[in-house]
Amino acid sequence: MQKHPGIKDIARIAGVSIATVSRVLNGNSYVSPELSKRVLEAAGKLKYQPNRIARGLRKGKTNTIGFLIPDIENPFFSAIVKGAEDFLRKFGYTILLCSSSGIAEREDELLNVLFSHKVDGLMTIPLESQTPYLEKIERLGIPVVVIDDIIKKKDVSSVASDNYSGMSQLMRYLLDTNHKSFAFLSGDPHTYSGKERLRAFRDVMVRQQENVEYEILFGTYTFNSGIDMLRKLKRIPDAIVCGNDMIAFGVLTELQRMRYKIPDDVSITGFDDVLFSKMTNPPLTTVRQDYYMMGEVAAQLLMDSLNYKKRDSVLLKTELVIRGSSRE
Amino acid sequence: MQKHPGIKDIARIAGVSIATVSRVLNGNSYVSPELSKRVLEAAGKLKYQPNRIARGLRKGKTNTIGFLIPDIENPFFSAIVKGAEDFLRKFGYTILLCSSSGIAEREDELLNVLFSHKVDGLMTIPLESQTPYLEKIERLGIPVVVIDDIIKKKDVSSVASDNYSGMSQLMRYLLDTNHKSFAFLSGDPHTYSGKERLRAFRDVMVRQQENVEYEILFGTYTFNSGIDMLRKLKRIPDAIVCGNDMIAFGVLTELQRMRYKIPDDVSITGFDDVLFSKMTNPPLTTVRQDYYMMGEVAAQLLMDSLNYKKRDSVLLKTELVIRGSSRE
Repeated sequence: MQKHPGIKDIARIAGVSIATVSRVLNGNSYVSPELSKRVLEAAGKLKYQPNRIARGLRKGKTNTIGFLIPDIENPFFSAIVKGAEDFLRKFGYTILLCSSSGIAEREDELLNVLFSHKVDGLMTIPLESQTPYLEKIERLGIPVVVIDDIIKKKDVSSVASDNYSGMSQLMRYLLDTNHKSFAFLSGDPHTYSGKERLRAFRDVMVRQQENVEYEILFGTYTFNSGIDMLRKLKRIPDAIVCGNDMIAFGVLTELQRMRYKIPDDVSITGFDDVLFSKMTNPPLTTVRQDYYMMGEVAAQLLMDSLNYKKRDSVLLKTELVIRGSSRE
Repeated sequence: MQKHPGIKDIARIAGVSIATVSRVLNGNSYVSPELSKRVLEAAGKLKYQPNRIARGLRKGKTNTIGFLIPDIENPFFSAIVKGAEDFLRKFGYTILLCSSSGIAEREDELLNVLFSHKVDGLMTIPLESQTPYLEKIERLGIPVVVIDDIIKKKDVSSVASDNYSGMSQLMRYLLDTNHKSFAFLSGDPHTYSGKERLRAFRDVMVRQQENVEYEILFGTYTFNSGIDMLRKLKRIPDAIVCGNDMIAFGVLTELQRMRYKIPDDVSITGFDDVLFSKMTNPPLTTVRQDYYMMGEVAAQLLMDSLNYKKRDSVLLKTELVIRGSSRE
């Protein structure tokens, strides 16, 4: 155990999940009085002071946190930002948000802009995993939290969902409901989430005893990329497994334009469970990530880092959400 | 005519809409070669130089533009930011985005943060119209563009959709299709869009010769507010006219949970036509705002202001989009 306590230590001592610690300390979501008490007692025992810095604006500090995301139009990212913002606001911090619009060089430029604006810390949802950009943020000398990627480096904290387990669970469900042929429409395979979801898809396919057929296409996590990939499919399989909900929305819209019946002709699945996924026609079968909480946990890791120079990485659970876009 | 040319002057001389000028100068959307030529000739005639500043980083300038929005999770705002960003990036500017999360005092704090970060200009979608915040941005001494509001002040440019005409057209359509009772679920009536849409709804109701009944409720432009307002309705009318699409999504979700059939039992309409509006079940009848273009035009007004100290206000057209959520 490190010298100073962080949220992981509180979770361990209180015997609750990191999500629960996060909820209690942010105070935005309901947590039972009993659990709240356990968390606060553990925090007290550890002399955890999440708002040590916020007590006064320290000299030479700007009280701003840079937040760099790949795409302003993806509601998954917006919800993460919202979770972080609600948390950081309470501690007197302001988020300066920049979007790279999916352009790698832009990501690097924006990092320089934020750094020259003397942000006290940085949160980032990187465009790709293992890039020079990620090498660079390590050496910034300010606390950094990487979101939607797990970084095993001593100077960076990180938080992501367990994409591998989420996609494995979804695939097993599709096999159990008698789907035999698949198309996997991947988001960018250079992202952590892209890699992990693809790895899970492949592992389930390879381990499958019965005959299954599959095709894999690569694109980006956008509505239009979903349409593009769909058009490149050799044939329409039993199930189209989309890298995320945005891809699935594109596929759903285009298939319906082409008069396919969902799920009678083909099942469609997403990943994320954004707000709109339950409103589509039919509503989308998907894997839920708790994105708002991911933002909260990221903010908390940043506070741990600002206060105690403590770094950590957290993997959050996902949940399979079965709706009408996949046939039973 | 002012001494220096702006996009309005180019539009007038080329005999095209401001939207077309914006599209040609951004180069992101298709414009016919003939129209492009007319725009570029008019720009040449006027010696319009949109990228005068971008030629070199000027001393004492940060090449950053502050952008202050009320809500990071509303896709309508995200799309406006995207339009502005794609435009400004080409001119060497970076957007620093801040969200007030709907909190008025926060809006004021964030303005101070952005100003202390020495942004060269400010774009803002204000939380409310005619607030001290709007009085204050006038006196900042940097170019300011207000979006989704029309400000008639000499030191501020602004761009908005013609909300009044859009809502009037929608209401006439609902009357023509034999709807007799209405509920208007307004977004914040202190915003420009809220005021204008409500004014249009009331004017159409008052001028109506036949017997109509209506009820007006006030909330915010969010999914949850849609659900809240729906629950407060005295009775379910022929048509629920929602202040925007997000409100309509909340209403749609809640009514379906309550087993109402849309549009057989009740018609639902929105305003904005965000990406998801065509994907709901049934797809949403709404009024389309060209939000991406609103962002482009805002960016262009800011460039006019940075280059020529020219201020202007632009009102964009809307379009009625009839889909399955309203009965014929």
